[in-house]
Amino acid sequence: MKADLAEIVADVCSSVEGQIGSGRVADYIPALSRVDPRKFGIAIMTCDGETVCAGDAEEPFSIQSVSKVFTLTLALERVGAPLWDRVGREPTGSAFNSIVQLEHEAGIPRNPLVNAGALVVTDTLLDGKNPSQAINDIVAFLRLRADDPAVRVDAEVAQSESETGDRNASLAHFMRSFGNLNGEVDDVLSVYFQQCAIEMSCRQLARAGLYLAHAGSDPISDEQIVSEARTRRINAIMMSCGHYDASGDFAFHVGLPGKSGVGGGILAIAPRRASIAVWSPGLNDVGNSLVGSLALERLSALTGWSVF
Amino acid sequence: MKADLAEIVADVCSSVEGQIGSGRVADYIPALSRVDPRKFGIAIMTCDGETVCAGDAEEPFSIQSVSKVFTLTLALERVGAPLWDRVGREPTGSAFNSIVQLEHEAGIPRNPLVNAGALVVTDTLLDGKNPSQAINDIVAFLRLRADDPAVRVDAEVAQSESETGDRNASLAHFMRSFGNLNGEVDDVLSVYFQQCAIEMSCRQLARAGLYLAHAGSDPISDEQIVSEARTRRINAIMMSCGHYDASGDFAFHVGLPGKSGVGGGILAIAPRRASIAVWSPGLNDVGNSLVGSLALERLSALTGWSVF
Amino acid sequence: MKADLAEIVADVCSSVEGQIGSGRVADYIPALSRVDPRKFGIAIMTCDGETVCAGDAEEPFSIQSVSKVFTLTLALERVGAPLWDRVGREPTGSAFNSIVQLEHEAGIPRNPLVNAGALVVTDTLLDGKNPSQAINDIVAFLRLRADDPAVRVDAEVAQSESETGDRNASLAHFMRSFGNLNGEVDDVLSVYFQQCAIEMSCRQLARAGLYLAHAGSDPISDEQIVSEARTRRINAIMMSCGHYDASGDFAFHVGLPGKSGVGGGILAIAPRRASIAVWSPGLNDVGNSLVGSLALERLSALTGWSVF
Amino acid sequence: MKADLAEIVADVCSSVEGQIGSGRVADYIPALSRVDPRKFGIAIMTCDGETVCAGDAEEPFSIQSVSKVFTLTLALERVGAPLWDRVGREPTGSAFNSIVQLEHEAGIPRNPLVNAGALVVTDTLLDGKNPSQAINDIVAFLRLRADDPAVRVDAEVAQSESETGDRNASLAHFMRSFGNLNGEVDDVLSVYFQQCAIEMSCRQLARAGLYLAHAGSDPISDEQIVSEARTRRINAIMMSCGHYDASGDFAFHVGLPGKSGVGGGILAIAPRRASIAVWSPGLNDVGNSLVGSLALERLSALTGWSVF
Repeated sequence: MKADLAEIVADVCSSVEGQIGSGRVADYIPALSRVDPRKFGIAIMTCDGETVCAGDAEEPFSIQSVSKVFTLTLALERVGAPLWDRVGREPTGSAFNSIVQLEHEAGIPRNPLVNAGALVVTDTLLDGKNPSQAINDIVAFLRLRADDPAVRVDAEVAQSESETGDRNASLAHFMRSFGNLNGEVDDVLSVYFQQCAIEMSCRQLARAGLYLAHAGSDPISDEQIVSEARTRRINAIMMSCGHYDASGDFAFHVGLPGKSGVGGGILAIAPRRASIAVWSPGLNDVGNSLVGSLALERLSALTGWSVF
Repeated sequence: MKADLAEIVADVCSSVEGQIGSGRVADYIPALSRVDPRKFGIAIMTCDGETVCAGDAEEPFSIQSVSKVFTLTLALERVGAPLWDRVGREPTGSAFNSIVQLEHEAGIPRNPLVNAGALVVTDTLLDGKNPSQAINDIVAFLRLRADDPAVRVDAEVAQSESETGDRNASLAHFMRSFGNLNGEVDDVLSVYFQQCAIEMSCRQLARAGLYLAHAGSDPISDEQIVSEARTRRINAIMMSCGHYDASGDFAFHVGLPGKSGVGGGILAIAPRRASIAVWSPGLNDVGNSLVGSLALERLSALTGWSVF
Repeated sequence: MKADLAEIVADVCSSVEGQIGSGRVADYIPALSRVDPRKFGIAIMTCDGETVCAGDAEEPFSIQSVSKVFTLTLALERVGAPLWDRVGREPTGSAFNSIVQLEHEAGIPRNPLVNAGALVVTDTLLDGKNPSQAINDIVAFLRLRADDPAVRVDAEVAQSESETGDRNASLAHFMRSFGNLNGEVDDVLSVYFQQCAIEMSCRQLARAGLYLAHAGSDPISDEQIVSEARTRRINAIMMSCGHYDASGDFAFHVGLPGKSGVGGGILAIAPRRASIAVWSPGLNDVGNSLVGSLALERLSALTGWSVF
Repeated sequence: MKADLAEIVADVCSSVEGQIGSGRVADYIPALSRVDPRKFGIAIMTCDGETVCAGDAEEPFSIQSVSKVFTLTLALERVGAPLWDRVGREPTGSAFNSIVQLEHEAGIPRNPLVNAGALVVTDTLLDGKNPSQAINDIVAFLRLRADDPAVRVDAEVAQSESETGDRNASLAHFMRSFGNLNGEVDDVLSVYFQQCAIEMSCRQLARAGLYLAHAGSDPISDEQIVSEARTRRINAIMMSCGHYDASGDFAFHVGLPGKSGVGGGILAIAPRRASIAVWSPGLNDVGNSLVGSLALERLSALTGWSVF
C-alpha cells in the first residue's frame, strides 16, 4: 500500500500544481500576510503507521483554527458531556465570526469549531488554571500527539492576533453578558490567541490527528486518548462544522471530517484509514485553503476514503 | 450475519420500547394527526440483499420529506450540476420552513432538503411536463426502487397539504420573485404536496434507498441508478442537511447520512453496508421522529456502522 | 399668505430644477418604466383652503403606496383599535418588502405602511365584501376626499402588478400561514394591486390628504372624516414608518409626516397648516422620490412647517 | 397659562396615581434596583420660562440613556455632519443593545440613541481628550444647561455599570473591529458608563432640555446652544429613535420627541412650547418608564402639544 499511497500523493501534487499560488493569503496580521503563497505541503499518516509526505510538509505554519479540534478533545476529557450545555453541535449557516446567531440564541454558540464556540471551549480549559498553565496544557498535548517537542507558539503571531482581536473580544464579552463565559475575557482571549498561533508542520499535524482516525487510540504508542464513541462524535462535528459556512461543500466534495485554519492548513480524518494534513496559504472566498481543499478532493477520489 | 443483524434489531426494538408513544405527532393536517402514536417499524436491507424487519415495518406511512432524497436523485440525473446554481449544499442553521435565509441570499435556498430547496428540485422535474406527468415520474421511480407497484400517493393527505400549504406557497412565490422558480407556483406546489403524500412502508423505503448504500447501483438488479460519485454527494448532503436544524445532532448521535419526514419516517444510509428505514410518528422538538432517532442511534452503536 | 406661498413654491421649484430627471424610475412593470423621468409636480392645499400648484401638478400618476394612508384610515374607521392586534406601529429597520421580520414575529407585520402591513389592512376591508366592492369603497373614498370623480384605477398597471406580484403573494401566504390573513390570498392581492394602481394628480392627492392636516375634518366641506386623536395617530405612523427604511432620514431632513410611493409621489402633512403632494418619478436608493424628497426638504425649510 | 398648566399637571398626576409602582425596576445593578418603585416626578418648563413641578420632581435619579441626547448635541457641535458617516439616523426595529444590525451593516449603528450609536458619539468626544476630560465636558455641559452645579456622576452606579458592562464592551469591540471606534474600548466605556450614571432631578432635566424646545437657544439666558436646523434634527431623531423598539408606539401615543432611560426618566420636547421631564422607575416590557409614558400621553392629550 505504501507505494500506492506515494503514487496517489504524487498524483494529487501534480493535479493541483497549476493552482498553487491561487487564493488570497490571510492579511489581517503581518506575520500571516508575509507567508509565501506558493507553499504547498501534504502529509498522510495511516493507521498502519506509514507516512507519506510531499512538498513543504516539514515546514511549520500557523495552525490557527485547526487548534480547535484539539482543544475540543481536551475540553471533552475535562468536563465531558456538560460542555454541550454551553455550546451546540449544529452548523451555523453563518461566517466563522458571526455574532448574529449568538444574539438569537442567548449566548450559546452553535458549535465548538466557530470562534465563539472555541472561546467557550478555551474557557473550560482555564477553569482553575491561569492562562500560562492553560496554554501550556494545550501545547503539551500537541507535542505528545505530534510526538515532537518542537511544537510551539509563535509569539509574534499571538501578539498580532491580540492587537487585532476586537471581533473575538466582542464575541467573548457578548457570551459573558449571557453568563456563558466564566473566566475574564482577557484571560480567555490570551489563551485563545496563543492556541491559534501554534506552529506545526503538515507532518506534525497529521501525526497529532492520528488518534481521530484510529478510534481514539494512538496506533503507534497504543495509548487511548479518548473513547471510540467520543472520537466518532468529534469527527461528526468536524464533518458538520469544520469548514465554517462551507462545511456542506467540503462534505460534498471531499467527504471526510476536517478542520481548516486561516493559516492555510486543513486536518482531515479518514476514519480507520489515515490522518491527513495539507497546507497552502491561499484561501478561497469562505476562508478555507483553496489548493488544500482541491488536494483533499483529489485524494479522496483516488483513495476512495470518502465516508460516503 | 443475518442472525446477528436480527439480534441487533431485536436489541434496538427492546431498547426503545419504553419510549414508544413519546413525542408529538404532526397535527397540522387531520390525516397525519390520526396516526396511532404507538406505531414503530424498522427495516434494514443490506447490500448483500438480506432484509430484517421488525414492528410495523410493513405498514405504509406518509414519507413526507423523505421524498426529497429521491426527487434530488431524479433532478440530478435530469439537469446535473447546473442544479447547484439554483440551490446550495450547506446546512441552514434554521427551521425547515424558514424564509429568512432566502431573503438574505437572493432566493437561493441553502440546500435541496429544506422545503425551499425541495421546491426548486421539484420545479426542475416539471420542466417540459405537466404536474400529472411529473408526479407520475416520481411515483414510478419509487415503485421501481422499492420493487413494489403498490407505492402510491395518499390523495387525502395531498389535498390536506394543499389546503394548509400557505407557508410553502410563500416560499415558492418568494423564490419566483427572484427568478428561481420557472414553473407556475400552483403547479410546483401540486407536485410537491403529492410527493410528500406518498405512502410507503419501512420495508419499501429501505429497499428504495438501497442504491444509496451501494455506490449508486441496485445490488439486486445490478442496475446503476446514479454514478458512485453522485451517490457519495447525495449521502453527503443527507449528512449535512437531512435533519433540518438538528442535522449536526443526528451526525453526532447516529453518524449516518439520513433524511427524516414529518410523518415520522427516517431513511438512513450505511454506505457499503445497508439501507435502513425506521418509522415512529411522535416527533421531537425539531420535527424528527423521536423514537426513530433513538433506534438509529442504538443501531449505529451496535453495528459500528457510523461513518465516523 | 397666498402670495408668499406661491413665492415659496417657486423657490422650491427652482431649487430642484438642476436635479430633475435624477434617480431611477421604477422599472419592474412596463407601465411605470415608461413614465417620463423629467416630470415634476407639486401641489399644496392649506387648511384655509388655498391651493398652490406648480409643474405637472395636474397630471395623474400611479399613487402606489401612498394609497396605504387612505386604506389605513378606512380600516381604522371600520375595525378600530383591534387592527393593532394584527399589525404593529413600529418602524421596521428593513426594506419595504422584507419578510425576515414576519418570521421573527409570528406573521405580525411591523406597521401598516410596509407591504405586509398594508396587505393586512386591505384584508380588513374585504371582510364581508368581495374584491370589487372593496376596491370600489377605496376609490369612492378617494374620489370624495379628492373632490373629484375622475380618480380611477389604471387597469394596465393593476394587471402588471398582479403578474409580477410574487413577492407580495409570498408575504400574503406567509401571514396567512400564521392566521393573520382572513381572506383568500388572491382576493387580497387583487384589491391591493388595484389600490396601488390608483391614478391621481398632485392636486387631487393634496386635496385628498387635507383632512390629515386639519384634525381629521375637511376644512372645505366641514365634514369630520376621522377623530382628531386618530388623525394624530395616523400622522405619527406616517412619520415613523412612511418612508420604509429611510423614514428616519425623512424625519431628519423634512420633519413632516409623509408617505411615499414607488410611482414617485409623496404625500406630506403639515399638521394644522397644509397637505402637500409632490411627484417626480426618479427614485433614490431606498425607493423614495429623489427630487420629491429634496423639494419637501426645501419647502419645510422655507415655511418652517417642520413639526420639530 | 401657569394656572392652567398646574391644573393639567395635577390631572396628569391623578390620572396615573393608580398605576404608580407598576412596571419592573431595572435590576441589573444594585444601585438601580434599590430605587423605590413608587417614586414619581414630573417637571415642565415652558419656553416662557414658567416651571411646574409635581411629585418627586426635585429628587435626583440616574438619567442613563437620556444622556445620549446631550452627548449627541455635543458631538454634533464638535464634529458636525461627518458624524453621520459613522452612525445612521434610522430606527432599528431591534432592542437597545442588539448587535445583529451591526453585523449586517458593517459596524455602522443605526442611530445615535441606541447603545452602539451612543458609544460612537462618546468616542468622538474623546478625540484629543482623556476620559476624565471627556466626562468633565459632558457634566459641565449639563450643569450649564440645567443651570445647577449640583449635577454629578454617581460613582457607585458608574462602577456597577462597568462591572456588568459586557454587552456594551461587546458592541464597542465589534464596531472597533470594523474601524468605527477610534479610542480604546476601555476609555470609551469608561466615559459612557459615567455619562449614564449622571444623576439629575426632573427639574434639572427639564431645564437642561429647554434649548431643544426653543429652536436651539436658551430662553432664559438667550444663549444659542445649537442652530435651529440642528435642533429640529435632534428632535427628529428623538422622535424616530428615542424609545428603542417602541419609538413608533411613543410617537403614536404621545406624539412628542422624547428619550427614555432605564433609570425610569423620560425627557420629552414640545417644540416651541416646553421641555418636560418625568420619572418613575418601573419599566414596561421594552424598557421605558411605564408610568412616565402614561403621564406623557395624558399630558399630550390635555395640552394638545402633540406635534401631529
